[in-house]
Amino acid sequence: MSSKIKQEKWDIRAAKELFQETLKKGSEDAKKEIKLPEYTVKIDELDRKLTLDRINNLTDSLIEMIYETGRPSIRLPSRTSANIIWDEKNDLLLLGRQIMEKQFHSLASVADITRLMKVLEKINELLLKDLHATKREIFYSAVQLFGDQKNSDKCIEDVATMLYTTRNSTHIVASAKGSCIGRLRIRDKNDIIDLEGLGSGGWTISPMLDNIEIIESDAEFILVLEKDAAMIRLAEARFWRKYPCIILTAKGAADIATRMFLKRISKELKLPVFSLVDSDPYGHYIHSVYLRGSKRLSYESPFLATPDIKLLGVLTRDLEKYKIPNDCRIPMNQTDIKRTKELLNEGFVKKNKEWETDLKLALKLKVKAEIQALSAFGFEFLTDQYIPEKLSTGDWI
Amino acid sequence: MSSKIKQEKWDIRAAKELFQETLKKGSEDAKKEIKLPEYTVKIDELDRKLTLDRINNLTDSLIEMIYETGRPSIRLPSRTSANIIWDEKNDLLLLGRQIMEKQFHSLASVADITRLMKVLEKINELLLKDLHATKREIFYSAVQLFGDQKNSDKCIEDVATMLYTTRNSTHIVASAKGSCIGRLRIRDKNDIIDLEGLGSGGWTISPMLDNIEIIESDAEFILVLEKDAAMIRLAEARFWRKYPCIILTAKGAADIATRMFLKRISKELKLPVFSLVDSDPYGHYIHSVYLRGSKRLSYESPFLATPDIKLLGVLTRDLEKYKIPNDCRIPMNQTDIKRTKELLNEGFVKKNKEWETDLKLALKLKVKAEIQALSAFGFEFLTDQYIPEKLSTGDWI
Repeated sequence: MSSKIKQEKWDIRAAKELFQETLKKGSEDAKKEIKLPEYTVKIDELDRKLTLDRINNLTDSLIEMIYETGRPSIRLPSRTSANIIWDEKNDLLLLGRQIMEKQFHSLASVADITRLMKVLEKINELLLKDLHATKREIFYSAVQLFGDQKNSDKCIEDVATMLYTTRNSTHIVASAKGSCIGRLRIRDKNDIIDLEGLGSGGWTISPMLDNIEIIESDAEFILVLEKDAAMIRLAEARFWRKYPCIILTAKGAADIATRMFLKRISKELKLPVFSLVDSDPYGHYIHSVYLRGSKRLSYESPFLATPDIKLLGVLTRDLEKYKIPNDCRIPMNQTDIKRTKELLNEGFVKKNKEWETDLKLALKLKVKAEIQALSAFGFEFLTDQYIPEKLSTGDWI
Repeated sequence: MSSKIKQEKWDIRAAKELFQETLKKGSEDAKKEIKLPEYTVKIDELDRKLTLDRINNLTDSLIEMIYETGRPSIRLPSRTSANIIWDEKNDLLLLGRQIMEKQFHSLASVADITRLMKVLEKINELLLKDLHATKREIFYSAVQLFGDQKNSDKCIEDVATMLYTTRNSTHIVASAKGSCIGRLRIRDKNDIIDLEGLGSGGWTISPMLDNIEIIESDAEFILVLEKDAAMIRLAEARFWRKYPCIILTAKGAADIATRMFLKRISKELKLPVFSLVDSDPYGHYIHSVYLRGSKRLSYESPFLATPDIKLLGVLTRDLEKYKIPNDCRIPMNQTDIKRTKELLNEGFVKKNKEWETDLKLALKLKVKAEIQALSAFGFEFLTDQYIPEKLSTGDWI
């Protein structure tokens, strides 16, 4: 990277060890051949050309059926929860052998089929023109046919399944609200963007991620921030200069593009990922969305989840360790307590003893705290002491 | 600007004429000497050094009072609405001659004074270290003293008034959520940022705007978008290449930093500004916030408002003119009708006959429509026809 600022050696050993480990694990993973369980089908992320190929094959087979039998139909894997198998080991979402058949000649399915074909046509148009659209725009493109956006949304999912690909591969995207800054150089079509040279503002994460190519990075870790207020602090300190990292925030709950971009950079660059959230059930829930996807088991979760993300803070045990003044702690209300108990029932929490212990401590003390509470020790405490110390001692969950 | 793409001549005459007019008006404004009405005080936007100077003068005078009388006090203009005079002609907020006095020796005011001095101390620290903080961080910096964030927020306003400056000049900032893209080159400390070279993502607007310097632009207008979905469309089309402009969005309601950045670039570059919002009372309200500030008369409105902003669309009359299909129009509910009537009672609407007519038409037809409804005519209709046509014919309010 072309940073002209003299860089001090960073001294956060534990994170550095994790970086070496992740690098090693990454190259081992690359060597492994993935064996899919029998009777399952695989969902792929595809580029524009490959998605168009699949659309062409599908329509060819439909035309063939029309000539041969006069009774075309579309077979697609069922997306009912019973038919979704999440192969955690391989980090893949697999669909089982339950197949749905949509027939063209049945009077009952005629509206459904016509809608499906309209969405297929729109996706074909988007891919041919290399455009992207939101779900809302797809709905408005044939509002009379769809009647309700629920119908077009369902068709969008159906078409993605028919093509055995992700929604993003169909060029239907969701609005993004995230921002990224630090030691990363990317390309967006003809533009080469150095995320180290964007002042304190950073790069607005584009939802059209298929256009983004990761060029290079000399970062050794990625930091995900729940809140923009923490981003202000770190950007102002140009944190990434001393501690070689990439910093991301979705400014609250994690949106799809931010999660997908995080997954891309952490996987391609083989970097460890840490999150910094409020010490409350909502903050921990946001961390869990980056980790595992949202609660509603989504078709696309594996393309969005970062299963290796570590919870750096703010932990309940930090409140004791750093002697956060009592006045800076907020008493939990009934909703907080309920949500903390719900988190304790989640499989991904039960699997992580330290996390379980920390949430139990929160329930015992009945307190929560915001990241900003750390400014009780001065505005620079977060960047100059808290984060470096935790990265150095491996004090994460 | 260094765009390497061959640029077609743009053909949006009406906007071009407005651009020439704005340029001329800008240079006339610069020649005029502003005369303040008698018995008023002026609020200034200050740089770091000047704010520090005012803090030093204030503390010097306090020390002097202690030596001379032993009974120091602080006099500051009252911020009650009766004492705020908005000089619309000069686009300035003026405070009248009502003065409040805060005395140090009264037992009743001791907590208030101590809090005030603490905030002054924190602001002094921020300015000396060239740091920025959020209101929340100021609260946490002395949580026991403030007790409640309402108290520290009030003190922050008080200190700004005592110094006859804006809150932003005290380096206390709010989180930003906006994004900017197009023909603009800025500097953020050592970084020079070309907003034409950031792919489809754009630059995340930094709340630390006092660090931002506008270097150059060959834009001829500024486009403000309510929604990120419209930004996706315009960014994908690289709209600014054909039509030399700067595009901004706050991704919903307008936040302080986005409004302030818009005001800065429109004033410094002397560019006409257009907004594109949903055709519903909320969209029109968002436009009005850019135009006049939020409803609650804020101390800082004149530093945030862009009084010359034009409402490009989506107008109710557009629904007829462009024959937006009935299915793409949404019936107004009771809240919509109530809010539209409220807008019709606002002075800034009454002053603008065309706007009044359009809102009355909305009430008559009882419909609203989203920007995305335009995709009924194809995904590229917005960028290739709707916006250029309206800019060319002067079809705005």
